Amino acid sequence: MVEPYEAAMIIIGNEILSGRTQDKNLNFVAKRLSDAGIVFAEVRVVRDIEGEIAGAVNELREKYDYVFTSGGIGPTHDDITSASIAAAFGRKLVQDGEAYRRLKEYYEGRDDKLNDARLKMTYVPEGAGLITNPVSAAPGFFIENVYVMAGIPSVMQLMFDEVLQTLPKGRQIYSRTLTSHIAEGDIAAGLQEINGRYASVDIGSYPSYPTRENPHFSVSIVLRSADKNELTAAHEEARKLLSL
Amino acid sequence: MVEPYEAAMIIIGNEILSGRTQDKNLNFVAKRLSDAGIVFAEVRVVRDIEGEIAGAVNELREKYDYVFTSGGIGPTHDDITSASIAAAFGRKLVQDGEAYRRLKEYYEGRDDKLNDARLKMTYVPEGAGLITNPVSAAPGFFIENVYVMAGIPSVMQLMFDEVLQTLPKGRQIYSRTLTSHIAEGDIAAGLQEINGRYASVDIGSYPSYPTRENPHFSVSIVLRSADKNELTAAHEEARKLLSL
Repeated sequence: MVEPYEAAMIIIGNEILSGRTQDKNLNFVAKRLSDAGIVFAEVRVVRDIEGEIAGAVNELREKYDYVFTSGGIGPTHDDITSASIAAAFGRKLVQDGEAYRRLKEYYEGRDDKLNDARLKMTYVPEGAGLITNPVSAAPGFFIENVYVMAGIPSVMQLMFDEVLQTLPKGRQIYSRTLTSHIAEGDIAAGLQEINGRYASVDIGSYPSYPTRENPHFSVSIVLRSADKNELTAAHEEARKLLSL
Repeated sequence: MVEPYEAAMIIIGNEILSGRTQDKNLNFVAKRLSDAGIVFAEVRVVRDIEGEIAGAVNELREKYDYVFTSGGIGPTHDDITSASIAAAFGRKLVQDGEAYRRLKEYYEGRDDKLNDARLKMTYVPEGAGLITNPVSAAPGFFIENVYVMAGIPSVMQLMFDEVLQTLPKGRQIYSRTLTSHIAEGDIAAGLQEINGRYASVDIGSYPSYPTRENPHFSVSIVLRSADKNELTAAHEEARKLLSL
């Protein structure tokens, strides 16, 4: 059995940690990786501090097959991601000719200036490749297994889809969900037995508490596996356990 | 100047990493910590794997003043947080008499059974204190500077507010926000100058892209500081820069 590829994400942004902004990229990346059969192994949210960003990048790029970062590649003083990635790899920041061409064209088309602040967005760590930004031109970049993208969801998500096309797919993971009003504690022992019998199947149990919209306790049992036959057999046993 | 307290959070949950569930606790905790003057320094999302959980706990409890965890303290086989925290501290899991009493009362009141699966929720690392669960009785716990809470937002958030009352407050952080339609790249140099002149003020620049609801580019400039006078002066300069 081939081990699946594993990926991690680093969300760079004081605005997430201050509570000002609700992150929207984590869930998007999680769904895309799940569909692609790549295991999403870890996420970190770090501050706009070079040592914190570089430290997380260096730790995670050793540990996982792919590392995706979001945020901090704009023109202002708090956009320090490119410099931090360069520091992590011990490389210089250099101006990329193609990035310069794209930004020049973009700003000329808008009768605007490619000033010093914007020129900052044409610099990438030496040897990096570009990731296209179809919205506002300023590219992301990749270096070895680290993919550096914008934080704004509309841009990040287009960049991510471009990157994902270039990565080898993992095994397809199939999933089935069962929902019941039986309390979690009454099915826990039975679920554990089923979990023990099907090594390839990952079984998660997720209770929901009553809300105004949905005034009942319920529990969702999610079964996930790359082995369709084991998944079907485990699902059938879980169905009986829940009397569905 | 006293250094502010720093906190980290560990979100334990395959359901977040698989994309099944959109996390709601991070933003809640971020806002609460900001109001309390505690710096939210880092978040990690890790899988339901003992070594991953224990590793993150041990790294972060050394590095920060407080560590909050959410998720994985229920009755099912995939709830391994308590065992993982015990492993991190090198302590045994022991039954807590008060936790047992609360669960017995809760399930008797509902004419339900305190079965083996539910008894699991009465075990905590030796020496831990309890965190009240006003919704469904099964407590969270704390051990040294690590606070272990449920993952379900309604429960997690009540537990968090109980914990927060027990922590010393940091300095109050004040913030001001300015919003403009000027492009980020046109104010970047001016913002950097202002940022350089006010050491205590953290200035963030957050662009928004047009959406169907709001078809204009805009940028929010957020100024944060514990020093009201510096904040007011920096805010006044930024206001002029943005011609507001």
